[in-house]
Amino acid sequence: MPYPEKFTGFQVESPETWTEFHKNEFQPKPFGDYDVDIKIEACGVCGSDVHTINGGWGEQHFPLAVGHEIVGTAIRVGPKVSLIKEGQRVGVGAQSYSCLDCRQCKNDNETYCRKQLDTYGAKWPETGIISQGGYSSHVRTHEHWVFPIPDGLATHEAAPMLCAGLTAYSPLVRNGCGPGKKVGIVGIGGIGHFGVLFAKALGAEVWAISRSHAKEEDARKLGADGFIATGDKDWAKPHDMTFDLIINTANSFEGFDLSAYLSLLDVHGRWVSVGLPEGDGLSIRNQDFLSNGCFIGSSHLGSRKETLAMLQLAADKGIHPWIEQVPIGADNLSKTLQRLHKNDVHYRFCLTNYDDVFGQ
Amino acid sequence: MPYPEKFTGFQVESPETWTEFHKNEFQPKPFGDYDVDIKIEACGVCGSDVHTINGGWGEQHFPLAVGHEIVGTAIRVGPKVSLIKEGQRVGVGAQSYSCLDCRQCKNDNETYCRKQLDTYGAKWPETGIISQGGYSSHVRTHEHWVFPIPDGLATHEAAPMLCAGLTAYSPLVRNGCGPGKKVGIVGIGGIGHFGVLFAKALGAEVWAISRSHAKEEDARKLGADGFIATGDKDWAKPHDMTFDLIINTANSFEGFDLSAYLSLLDVHGRWVSVGLPEGDGLSIRNQDFLSNGCFIGSSHLGSRKETLAMLQLAADKGIHPWIEQVPIGADNLSKTLQRLHKNDVHYRFCLTNYDDVFGQ
Repeated sequence: MPYPEKFTGFQVESPETWTEFHKNEFQPKPFGDYDVDIKIEACGVCGSDVHTINGGWGEQHFPLAVGHEIVGTAIRVGPKVSLIKEGQRVGVGAQSYSCLDCRQCKNDNETYCRKQLDTYGAKWPETGIISQGGYSSHVRTHEHWVFPIPDGLATHEAAPMLCAGLTAYSPLVRNGCGPGKKVGIVGIGGIGHFGVLFAKALGAEVWAISRSHAKEEDARKLGADGFIATGDKDWAKPHDMTFDLIINTANSFEGFDLSAYLSLLDVHGRWVSVGLPEGDGLSIRNQDFLSNGCFIGSSHLGSRKETLAMLQLAADKGIHPWIEQVPIGADNLSKTLQRLHKNDVHYRFCLTNYDDVFGQ
Repeated sequence: MPYPEKFTGFQVESPETWTEFHKNEFQPKPFGDYDVDIKIEACGVCGSDVHTINGGWGEQHFPLAVGHEIVGTAIRVGPKVSLIKEGQRVGVGAQSYSCLDCRQCKNDNETYCRKQLDTYGAKWPETGIISQGGYSSHVRTHEHWVFPIPDGLATHEAAPMLCAGLTAYSPLVRNGCGPGKKVGIVGIGGIGHFGVLFAKALGAEVWAISRSHAKEEDARKLGADGFIATGDKDWAKPHDMTFDLIINTANSFEGFDLSAYLSLLDVHGRWVSVGLPEGDGLSIRNQDFLSNGCFIGSSHLGSRKETLAMLQLAADKGIHPWIEQVPIGADNLSKTLQRLHKNDVHYRFCLTNYDDVFGQ
């Protein structure tokens, strides 16, 4: 296995040309004592990838290879690495750095560290190098954000768990999802379908909540105990004040009647949004929260500890996300990102066949 | 003590004439087996009273006597009353009915019962009678919403606790206010000054948060450990991610930068709004909650159990709210409600001298 001096990735040059991918070499950050070099074998395709390259989330550093649901093989570990062994199958998600020293980091809240850096598109403070993601041959990552993948999980199924899966899993466990709880998952897409899978695996009564009945059969196959279509007349009434927790994965606020959703919540129940829609927000009044004293908030990824627990739960319970595998390449990336932009996926793409374009 | 067939109150006829109070007789609801008749001795003047009579909260039933921070003497108790004794000094707050049978009622969440009725302005289901508040000679209330006042509390100090006090107290205790917690109180007014008093009595580190430094001295006298003026440059930075809980009592969203306030919260910290500003709401984006995974919500009054605990805490700790006493009467009500409308009060009015206008 020849070891490259530079890594190679499929980069986008600008938001105006976000459907064009160019295979370029790029310089990774210098190899640190705690770093792990990973030869990538698969990478999930996340909604964030589209929001980033098409300019929907604002200015970014280009050229850029996105992708932050990475699984591959650790081919080199730094002298102080203790969590990862060379040769191990490992994953990297959407976060690749935090200070590991502040109160947040020391309380398993490293995702909320003020110094956190993203796996792609972040500027490394010391060198100014822009981090590049998993649409690439290799990734170089501090061991804290490198996760051993349990044997029971297929590579293409584990990869999408590292952002979409964790984004659903962390707010579920942090907000009491478990036996005896009624949990709603709004939006059955990449994150939402993991929400149904994990909420069920954690023992809750799970309801999928979608605009129409189009995904009802899918939701039930994923394990949902019930299904609510918000296009139906008086859809909220039968569930008035019965949900303990709702995870909102919706990617758009168009036609969104937040008050109706909040009426589903029990006293002090929680509405946790994990999508980051482009554009303007929603108008809220204190009165919207008054009839049940509910709370709304967001959640950002999850901790290393939660990532490891999620992967183990998935392996133990035999959880199988619905993944469409796509061999990586410039044409396939263009087609796949455009399909994702139109939500034409049930429910996650995963890029594979890395050896075909990057070599053995 | 002659017992009236009808009660008498100072009523407003319409929002257009909200500064004119007319002393009228009115018919209370029929006396029920669990009801208590109370001869009123004092009543706090709540912001809700202004919002209701001036039309700011929308249509109401007129003529209407407002007032829902009532203390007086129980002069008659129904045959099934077990919680209150005739002759006892008692209080009534802003809520006067719920079903006492649903899951919310059985979990000390009667304030969130779907059948809850307000002390004034509510239509009683069986008779259509509109409930009248404490700007009146008497009030007739189910014993569940009648609270014995501990001996240690002065009548004019206990009355404002029954809405303003409880509105601050309940979200404090429900969200973990206590030793080791850093708690913010936004808005030093009727509710906010109780927030400082109770948060301190509960053992938290308490910070008053106000637009200017005008109320800093008052806040420190009330017991605040610190003071933040949001008019100061970079006011939020020194407190970034340090608050566990913030109770927002602000009565207006004018010039309100919610994101800056939310940046004060620790990971998963909570922002609980208890004011109900008139007019439009705030625009929020999921991104506003992302850097700390915080939650925002509202809180509505509190339970009977919490009311009794609050009154006992106030008596035990010798808590003295800052109350300006005003003898009840048409002229004084007009002046007092207009002063409250301009926030010209430090920090609560309480109507007294009821015997002078309603007789012994």
